[in-house]
Amino acid sequence: MRLIDLRSDTVTRPTPEMRRAMYEAEVGDDVYGEDPTVNRLQERAAELLGKEDALFVPTGTQGNQVAVLTHTRRGEEVIVEAEAHVYIYEVAGIAALSGCQVKPVPGVNGAMDPEAVAAAIREDNVHYPRTGLVCVENTHNRSGGCVVPTENIAAVAGAAHRRGIPVHMDGARIFNAAVALGRPAAELVAPVDSVMFCLSKGLAAPVGSLLVGSRDFIAEARRHRKLLGGGMRQAGVLAAAGLVALELMIDRLADDHANARRLAEGINEIPGLAVDMATVQTNMVLTEVTDPRWTAPALVQALREEGVLCNATGPQHIRLVTHKDVTAADVEIALATIDQVVKAGPQ
Amino acid sequence: MRLIDLRSDTVTRPTPEMRRAMYEAEVGDDVYGEDPTVNRLQERAAELLGKEDALFVPTGTQGNQVAVLTHTRRGEEVIVEAEAHVYIYEVAGIAALSGCQVKPVPGVNGAMDPEAVAAAIREDNVHYPRTGLVCVENTHNRSGGCVVPTENIAAVAGAAHRRGIPVHMDGARIFNAAVALGRPAAELVAPVDSVMFCLSKGLAAPVGSLLVGSRDFIAEARRHRKLLGGGMRQAGVLAAAGLVALELMIDRLADDHANARRLAEGINEIPGLAVDMATVQTNMVLTEVTDPRWTAPALVQALREEGVLCNATGPQHIRLVTHKDVTAADVEIALATIDQVVKAGPQ
Amino acid sequence: MRLIDLRSDTVTRPTPEMRRAMYEAEVGDDVYGEDPTVNRLQERAAELLGKEDALFVPTGTQGNQVAVLTHTRRGEEVIVEAEAHVYIYEVAGIAALSGCQVKPVPGVNGAMDPEAVAAAIREDNVHYPRTGLVCVENTHNRSGGCVVPTENIAAVAGAAHRRGIPVHMDGARIFNAAVALGRPAAELVAPVDSVMFCLSKGLAAPVGSLLVGSRDFIAEARRHRKLLGGGMRQAGVLAAAGLVALELMIDRLADDHANARRLAEGINEIPGLAVDMATVQTNMVLTEVTDPRWTAPALVQALREEGVLCNATGPQHIRLVTHKDVTAADVEIALATIDQVVKAGPQ
Amino acid sequence: MRLIDLRSDTVTRPTPEMRRAMYEAEVGDDVYGEDPTVNRLQERAAELLGKEDALFVPTGTQGNQVAVLTHTRRGEEVIVEAEAHVYIYEVAGIAALSGCQVKPVPGVNGAMDPEAVAAAIREDNVHYPRTGLVCVENTHNRSGGCVVPTENIAAVAGAAHRRGIPVHMDGARIFNAAVALGRPAAELVAPVDSVMFCLSKGLAAPVGSLLVGSRDFIAEARRHRKLLGGGMRQAGVLAAAGLVALELMIDRLADDHANARRLAEGINEIPGLAVDMATVQTNMVLTEVTDPRWTAPALVQALREEGVLCNATGPQHIRLVTHKDVTAADVEIALATIDQVVKAGPQ
Repeated sequence: MRLIDLRSDTVTRPTPEMRRAMYEAEVGDDVYGEDPTVNRLQERAAELLGKEDALFVPTGTQGNQVAVLTHTRRGEEVIVEAEAHVYIYEVAGIAALSGCQVKPVPGVNGAMDPEAVAAAIREDNVHYPRTGLVCVENTHNRSGGCVVPTENIAAVAGAAHRRGIPVHMDGARIFNAAVALGRPAAELVAPVDSVMFCLSKGLAAPVGSLLVGSRDFIAEARRHRKLLGGGMRQAGVLAAAGLVALELMIDRLADDHANARRLAEGINEIPGLAVDMATVQTNMVLTEVTDPRWTAPALVQALREEGVLCNATGPQHIRLVTHKDVTAADVEIALATIDQVVKAGPQ
Repeated sequence: MRLIDLRSDTVTRPTPEMRRAMYEAEVGDDVYGEDPTVNRLQERAAELLGKEDALFVPTGTQGNQVAVLTHTRRGEEVIVEAEAHVYIYEVAGIAALSGCQVKPVPGVNGAMDPEAVAAAIREDNVHYPRTGLVCVENTHNRSGGCVVPTENIAAVAGAAHRRGIPVHMDGARIFNAAVALGRPAAELVAPVDSVMFCLSKGLAAPVGSLLVGSRDFIAEARRHRKLLGGGMRQAGVLAAAGLVALELMIDRLADDHANARRLAEGINEIPGLAVDMATVQTNMVLTEVTDPRWTAPALVQALREEGVLCNATGPQHIRLVTHKDVTAADVEIALATIDQVVKAGPQ
Repeated sequence: MRLIDLRSDTVTRPTPEMRRAMYEAEVGDDVYGEDPTVNRLQERAAELLGKEDALFVPTGTQGNQVAVLTHTRRGEEVIVEAEAHVYIYEVAGIAALSGCQVKPVPGVNGAMDPEAVAAAIREDNVHYPRTGLVCVENTHNRSGGCVVPTENIAAVAGAAHRRGIPVHMDGARIFNAAVALGRPAAELVAPVDSVMFCLSKGLAAPVGSLLVGSRDFIAEARRHRKLLGGGMRQAGVLAAAGLVALELMIDRLADDHANARRLAEGINEIPGLAVDMATVQTNMVLTEVTDPRWTAPALVQALREEGVLCNATGPQHIRLVTHKDVTAADVEIALATIDQVVKAGPQ
Repeated sequence: MRLIDLRSDTVTRPTPEMRRAMYEAEVGDDVYGEDPTVNRLQERAAELLGKEDALFVPTGTQGNQVAVLTHTRRGEEVIVEAEAHVYIYEVAGIAALSGCQVKPVPGVNGAMDPEAVAAAIREDNVHYPRTGLVCVENTHNRSGGCVVPTENIAAVAGAAHRRGIPVHMDGARIFNAAVALGRPAAELVAPVDSVMFCLSKGLAAPVGSLLVGSRDFIAEARRHRKLLGGGMRQAGVLAAAGLVALELMIDRLADDHANARRLAEGINEIPGLAVDMATVQTNMVLTEVTDPRWTAPALVQALREEGVLCNATGPQHIRLVTHKDVTAADVEIALATIDQVVKAGPQ
């Protein structure tokens, strides 16, 4: 049985062009700053995002955590959206690595109210930690891949900057946002001080993310990357695939978005499932299980047995993600399978 | 001008009995465990709270932070009520000292929904921190000194214990709760594993708090107290006052509660101020400033100039606290002053 | 049996003058900065040490750890003498609280070689932590209370300052050093940026230490004191005893030093024990147990049974400390007891 | 000018077999545990080292730091050799990430005295941190690649295990030790609980290291790898090269050792340089600069201009490292260049 894997765009496999690029990659020791392919990738990433410099890291989690380490001092507070990846899915790294406390601010589809952010910034008081950083996320994973409007990002960043506080963006899927808006990524991240984005999700590279920001910020981030054990040696073999990803894989995210939209529409026709179409903006479909016979984990398990893989994100919610290894035809097969399984009910 | 200080019950000055007890205190070196007065206080505290053992610490913050250090391992998550003192007012200690991430759960007058607590406990997943501790607070400071019902504490603790997670109570004012309920403190804290309570607030001792729990827990807490620099030497001089506080100052908290109620009723008669009487359960009066001419900080400043001290706890909220250095007559004077100042409007 | 307690000068009990001062102390809430007695003590301490400002803390350990927290950022390296109290006896606080790594440099009687300190300062390299602080200690506890020469302190501090690195002194017993040298304490600490000294050791106050330094440093230290739970309320009751200690107890340290010298000379006449007289500079006598029948812990235990208390500091070393609760007559009794017990051999 | 790069074996470039293996690698999402090539590599590594399980990490530093995180609790002490990589070159990670204090014990060519290790383990005392881990290193980098005798490792581990303390080996170059001794690596690491070894140094893979240990240890290490941002996705592209490294690159380390020996002998014939031949046991040559005209950094710079790259490891010491990209002929060229440069003296 061929599996249709809608769990995440992290499962994408490298393309033939990527494999060839890795095969031929010119490499050096990147701890000495001598890997020409890593250097080219970092330059290209900085250019694409409109920042001064960039740093290649093995994962998005490391990119985010290096950013937090670099922007903050121990004992500060970090404002995060209440469902942010950096808070929910990164093993408590903000506290464990940076010694900083989180201050979650609830968002609507990932967008925090700028006034709530302003109010969450701490006054000067001996009982209070200082607010050291505000984190935003775009696209926003837990809301089903919603694009956070650039004006919202700008307003939140403005609230922070007026108090002298830096802003980091978890832009793991920033190119999904850019494609969805039809705007350059650099424009979307212009209001923030640093951005992490991933090569290994929709862009299909096997491994790697980039952290971008000012030259001084990246110089200090390099130390923190070493601390976390991200100072790889001939990383050019990975960076080569990353360069292919940036050249060939961004525009085609539009196909994933079209597939997600078709998938969402189809799911909405299945009794017992519901998708808020307003949230289907990129490559994710956050589906509510309304059929009282099913819980999300039970349905995920039943679908797995029929070859459709997806993840439960709560007792009644399932997330399905499209990506380059899921075709339009796969979407139709998946829909048929889901329809059949849901209707049949738990066995 | 005589000041009427309603900022906090932390401002209480020691009684003559306490000063005499300090003067006469039998002391030893408590780092060696040889201070007889400290030992007596610790025994008495454990007995009053119905736990095996107790530890004298210089402050409530240290008591709470020692508890977090002792219950958790670095990188775990600690469930806290969203307005808890341990989260809002302790300089990010949970992250800075214990390396743990907070997971705030909003409460109603300090009481968290036990199902929300159960849902906040993390499943086993490589992306997630483990949940290492649940903290409750009674009375609950930020809600204006509300008593959290013992059944609620028991239900929250049950949700934690079913998953093998310990529960700590910030009981800085647990005796206010006990007096308000007319029940022994030991009954209120029976569901939790450890409790911190303060001698230096309504009980009027100059310095000191106690952490109580099992014998093993306190033995380990002693190490963490040393780490935080709480291993004092002839601490018996402080403990002597604490013994007086436990003997003579608990029952009289009822007077503070009566004064708070009178104060709240009087404030409610002043146009432009409002108190939700349902929250006036102990010695605090959380007052909303509804007069559009006033902000809370401006009103606090204006009152200060007329000799009434209180604290703003938000842009439109003022907290007034009664204690043994505020008499029933002081309450009437304060009410007259507040009435006059509010009506006059900002100058 | 009356005990002669030579374990530490931490066991000193408050004098009648101190008890009276505590009884009469004018107090306020020191978290609000309103305790007049604490404020007076802090001013006096700053003045005595020749620094801008001072902060009252409950213990010497907290004073040292607040200093480390305030001078450093997480992930830096702290140069310490290889036997320093801050490294050996403070529960790994440099790492546990500040997230900093220690770099021990061996000293001679507590004095580090300034060139070794200079060499231990890290170069700029992505593999290296930055050096964030150098700690010195005077008098030096583990070497038996030796006075570290002021020129040595100055040379070490110079090596640090030339690289822009601050210097903290653990001056728990700085007044013992000052009395031994016959110089003002301010002169001894002039080369360093911050100093912690204790009221509760030879100066006999029941509880408390001070951290002194620049105004900015102390302002930031106040936040870290709160973090560690050292923000006490009516701390004036303790500060009152501290003011007495600074007024009446410094000069009499000369008596402790004379007693220590007499004790050391007497011990040197006992076969099986040896003291390096060159190290007997203040109020400690570090004694080597050369009698092959005895280990230090066994001898300490045997002496305890005869009413003489002291501490083993290694398998063959015993430390005896003189202080205001040990008289010249006590020294003679102690010597007679030691002589008798050592000669008798283990039972 | 062709460079002869003797700075480190980290500069090795992947072999054609590795590139082919990467090109063809079967991959999956390793965060889900579904990358078959990573799984094969981990099984092979565990087997080779004689432990139950293994975990692929991007760098040796991350492998060591994950081990420390997994073995310890915050606030413990970690015994390290005084020149250990984990202490000197890992950005203070033991403190910054694990919150643990180091206790350096000086070694002879990397071998610590087992009695000194036993003596460094802390007794139970409220002032002391607990000893949580002992780290050994084999081969030992800072001593010039010396092999630490297996009996020494066993004795040190025995001292730790008798006190219930685990032992981790930084075995970045454990296969150099195994080849030098002509013994299986599993035999060398039998006394310790966990081992990190690198694929990216002498074994020439582009990126990656492995952490091996018991099944439970590795399960917990997986969480800490995620925390540090080491949870890569299609890591099979790297693991494929790693499998080639383990199959084809171990035995040939003997050539590097022969080249190092020849290099050392040649250097010893150059006036002004000296190598202690007893330390030339694997692929490193630690050279002392005795010519008073030269400092090590100046000589390194002068050699660089003539195409020979090496690193200064101190004011008078240079380290040269042989590896698969340095041939026997390169060694002769390097010797001729060094001879010429040293004799000519600084320009």
